[in-house]
Amino acid sequence: MNEKVLITGGSGFIGSHLTKALAKDNEITILDNLSSGNVKFIRGIPMRFLMYDIGQIKGLKLAIEEQDVVFHLAANPDVRLGIQITDLDLRQEAINTYRVLEVMRQKDVKKIVLASSSVIYGNHQGKLLSEDTGPCLPISLYGAGKLASEGLVSAFAHTYGLKAWIFRFGNVVGSNGTHGIIYDFIKKLDKNPQELEVLGDGSQEKPYIHVSDCVDGMIYGYEHSNDTINYFNLSSEGTTRVSDIAEKVRDRVNPQARIIYTGGKHGWPGDVPKFQLDTSKLKQLGWKAKYKSDDAVTLAIDELLR
Amino acid sequence: MNEKVLITGGSGFIGSHLTKALAKDNEITILDNLSSGNVKFIRGIPMRFLMYDIGQIKGLKLAIEEQDVVFHLAANPDVRLGIQITDLDLRQEAINTYRVLEVMRQKDVKKIVLASSSVIYGNHQGKLLSEDTGPCLPISLYGAGKLASEGLVSAFAHTYGLKAWIFRFGNVVGSNGTHGIIYDFIKKLDKNPQELEVLGDGSQEKPYIHVSDCVDGMIYGYEHSNDTINYFNLSSEGTTRVSDIAEKVRDRVNPQARIIYTGGKHGWPGDVPKFQLDTSKLKQLGWKAKYKSDDAVTLAIDELLR
Repeated sequence: MNEKVLITGGSGFIGSHLTKALAKDNEITILDNLSSGNVKFIRGIPMRFLMYDIGQIKGLKLAIEEQDVVFHLAANPDVRLGIQITDLDLRQEAINTYRVLEVMRQKDVKKIVLASSSVIYGNHQGKLLSEDTGPCLPISLYGAGKLASEGLVSAFAHTYGLKAWIFRFGNVVGSNGTHGIIYDFIKKLDKNPQELEVLGDGSQEKPYIHVSDCVDGMIYGYEHSNDTINYFNLSSEGTTRVSDIAEKVRDRVNPQARIIYTGGKHGWPGDVPKFQLDTSKLKQLGWKAKYKSDDAVTLAIDELLR
Repeated sequence: MNEKVLITGGSGFIGSHLTKALAKDNEITILDNLSSGNVKFIRGIPMRFLMYDIGQIKGLKLAIEEQDVVFHLAANPDVRLGIQITDLDLRQEAINTYRVLEVMRQKDVKKIVLASSSVIYGNHQGKLLSEDTGPCLPISLYGAGKLASEGLVSAFAHTYGLKAWIFRFGNVVGSNGTHGIIYDFIKKLDKNPQELEVLGDGSQEKPYIHVSDCVDGMIYGYEHSNDTINYFNLSSEGTTRVSDIAEKVRDRVNPQARIIYTGGKHGWPGDVPKFQLDTSKLKQLGWKAKYKSDDAVTLAIDELLR
């Protein structure tokens, strides 16, 4: 790749790693309101930084014009927050994705890469989820926001001649993480080193992907597919149990700490307790994750404890 | 059914028929801004009418409080209008569905019936579409709006303990129609009786359902299923070619008129040219449409010419 690239949310968790990976060969602009991103994540990387909210149309137009491709990662990163603030995911996913697409249409920018999520599939009771699995009935507002974003990207692509790459992430873990299970466990043990409270009964089991693999897979998929809509699960091999993650973090921070499970199969309303992602579609293109799910978790614990 | 029922869009095309069918046994409230509905469609039917836009929260709260169930039909009825007004379907489907759900949550109203559409499936090249067909990558902004509405309904249901019935309509035709293919053909011949312009090459082929069957199927499905999310294709048997519809309308209005095809497989960007809907799920519950697709079209032409 040697392109003009806009990365929305480019100083956030995944965005900062993507910025670093793409800055070598491309001309990068970041659009980020720093609501959850952090400039220290991208210190020293050559790029243009525009500190606007996507809702500030002037900044959005400035960011999008003359780009070759938009990597749209800006979104609410906190899956559980939507339970309390019910319009958060509507605004930060559906409406903001619409705004990005509409300005792309106006400015004749033709390629978009969307950070989506496996939550769009909803709860299929642990079944292996391929990219063509249906129905897509998400069980969280976060999931509804991502599904709405996918629909908008697809509709704009077909109606106005855009090309789109949609990546449905598993649980992404690693350095610069500001949310998610490992981050939460470390924070809890920091507050009370004697006790680690785990939401649910610990039997939840999901695929975890290291952020380096996530970024690598996105770039590979973008470079190696060329349909109107290119859509991929992006995850590593295997799954990891929540109880195993709790024990791993506990053993690293304070082996004497007690683990307390709140009980119930779901960690919280909207949590998909068990799922597996079929990653064969990206594999057929020639890409696979470097780290297995368990290894991604172990590495991320190391990184986040540092 | 003997319930307190809110029908959003209750004086519109499908809404007016639903209002009539439900008014016999239920206590009806209609919320309608009359943007495409018409009070003459519901003249003489006992009900409470609230003329507010869904965006007017005061009216929405008044409409929703103390209801047993909300039939949410209000939406942009014009699939093609979204091409010009790109935020129309975002506002009238995604955002308005969110508003309805959020007020239901606040007012503790637990049941919602959503008028969705087969456009959520996107273009599967004529394949028979079951309710579990994936991926759901709509090709029109109208379709993206409906998909977003489904996601929101599903997410609210799972997160806040609602129950939902989702009906994915085929092409609904019949009296009180204010948009759609038959209505358009009649209008065109009214303007110029010598010539009927048809968008596309006429080979488009889709299932058409008569509005009486559509309403009957919705009520039947609502009364005979009880999961958290109950989702159904709602259509009649068979499909009808666009060229056949053009000829039927021409023959009724002016047999001498020339039919001109604009060419191309799609009628317009975002038009799914060919699809079939698998209706076995509702059939297994004991319901089927009275009219086949061709008969529904013939009946609707009669009704709309009256």
